[in-house]
Amino acid sequence: MTAKHISECHERIKPYVHNTAVLTSRLIDKEVEANLFFKCENFQRAGAYKMRGATNAILQLTDQQKKNGVVTHSSGNFAQALSLAAQSVGVIAHIVMPNTAPEVKKVGVREYGGKIYECEPTVEARQALADAIAVSTGATFIHPSNDENVILGQGTAAIELLQEQPDLDFIFCPIGGGGLIAGSALAVKYFGNSCEVLGGEPFEADDAYRSLISGKIEGNKTVNTIADGLKTTLGDKNFPIIKELVSDIIRVKEEEIIAAMRLVWERMKIIIEPSSAVTVAAVIRQSKENSKILQNKNVGIIISGGNVDLAKLPF
Amino acid sequence: MTAKHISECHERIKPYVHNTAVLTSRLIDKEVEANLFFKCENFQRAGAYKMRGATNAILQLTDQQKKNGVVTHSSGNFAQALSLAAQSVGVIAHIVMPNTAPEVKKVGVREYGGKIYECEPTVEARQALADAIAVSTGATFIHPSNDENVILGQGTAAIELLQEQPDLDFIFCPIGGGGLIAGSALAVKYFGNSCEVLGGEPFEADDAYRSLISGKIEGNKTVNTIADGLKTTLGDKNFPIIKELVSDIIRVKEEEIIAAMRLVWERMKIIIEPSSAVTVAAVIRQSKENSKILQNKNVGIIISGGNVDLAKLPF
Repeated sequence: MTAKHISECHERIKPYVHNTAVLTSRLIDKEVEANLFFKCENFQRAGAYKMRGATNAILQLTDQQKKNGVVTHSSGNFAQALSLAAQSVGVIAHIVMPNTAPEVKKVGVREYGGKIYECEPTVEARQALADAIAVSTGATFIHPSNDENVILGQGTAAIELLQEQPDLDFIFCPIGGGGLIAGSALAVKYFGNSCEVLGGEPFEADDAYRSLISGKIEGNKTVNTIADGLKTTLGDKNFPIIKELVSDIIRVKEEEIIAAMRLVWERMKIIIEPSSAVTVAAVIRQSKENSKILQNKNVGIIISGGNVDLAKLPF
Repeated sequence: MTAKHISECHERIKPYVHNTAVLTSRLIDKEVEANLFFKCENFQRAGAYKMRGATNAILQLTDQQKKNGVVTHSSGNFAQALSLAAQSVGVIAHIVMPNTAPEVKKVGVREYGGKIYECEPTVEARQALADAIAVSTGATFIHPSNDENVILGQGTAAIELLQEQPDLDFIFCPIGGGGLIAGSALAVKYFGNSCEVLGGEPFEADDAYRSLISGKIEGNKTVNTIADGLKTTLGDKNFPIIKELVSDIIRVKEEEIIAAMRLVWERMKIIIEPSSAVTVAAVIRQSKENSKILQNKNVGIIISGGNVDLAKLPF
């Protein structure tokens, strides 16, 4: 995946996605003694950066593929994003969701015209049902994170952030399936200026941290985290990029995630989901434990999304 | 108060306040069949538009007055705003707060260097203690809403909104003490282009609605509303302006306020306080009851603030 691929992807999806705002907070800057730039993908269409990769994947289909529709499995933001991206260009989206998925996410999918299929909440059941739908309908399977078109699309948020703040020293991303951080790392490689990419991950779902240490894709030992978007594991398409281009992964505790989420809600008056709070918590932890690394530096943070169930807040 | 007064005020306070973002929402536009422009004073310093009027009042003090400090009574946003505005120019702020004020608001006042004095939660007790402090310290009393400098300052949010969207047909504001809507109405009179100003008010604290009907300042019959910023009543400085320049006041029910707050949180991913949700609810109600009035029109909404106690949400 070259600079040309990612630039072309950015041009391709521009008419379908928002160039989201970059916000700052004097108060949080003071707390971490650095200059933070929050790329607000919570303001993205369908409420998360996932819209970027989903749109790119849909736009790369052939006319015949578009006729046959697309299928994915996702309990969360990618389900909504693929539904909306598909709807935008008149393609049918088949969405496999675990029967434990929150009702609010199902409502979102339906609203964007996605066709929901429920299954048992296991990786195997999800993949099996998605495969069956692909066979019976001819729909193209699009993986939420382990797909080159998706990875390229997710990297465009970092491109926009770098266009607005070219002198970033660091960009922090959350790591779930690895699509966002892999795409961001490619964007930084081609368009950054001595910028490093760091990941934030919950201790309770630290597969990427352990994968970087062992050098191969590790599963999660637990997924007992509030950051529901980060329970998935890395894939064979994004892991090599992460291994090559990501400097470090900072793990954070559940109470740090909740405190960071509250801090941003209370001080910045924006709604970020727990997976995004992981990244903010990682910056705060890094500023405390390795203060010299971030001190007075320009730090970009990809706020990945704002899809929160208001009936189930942790505070 | 002339166009010159309000323009000069805007220049005076510019270095101390944010020119806050104006956001839009395709989804809410679709629901109300109009083009809405949300002036996000929830992103203002200290979390509310009150910073504008407080800053203007502080900057208009003589050097001798600055030495003696300022005093106000407020249970909410004005207390924090005056503390921060005073701190910005090295002035002491004495803040009388009812002993029922939420801890989170007291924390805010202290953080901005305000000196808190607690009293019984009645209008009389608040004014008596503020008067006593003014006498003993020589501090200048600044009323949160019934003060010309405060009214001019509050009007600057509407100026910025009109600079960004000159062709607004309507601007909706919440009405509590009346400072924001009076200032906004002056801004629209001098800088608007066939623009009307409308107010939003809870049925449960509809003093302004009844005052416009009777032609004189009426008290509240109840203040049983979630919109804690709108429990106060109009003053003799802002009521004449409101009577002359405000076209109508739309009253809304408590459940409409909560639904509008939820809608904005979920769809726009921004945190607005109940008093701001009153204004959104008023627009929604107007679009349903008198759809032709707003249909396809450009409608500004002053989102007054984002100071919410996250531990006490209505959903």
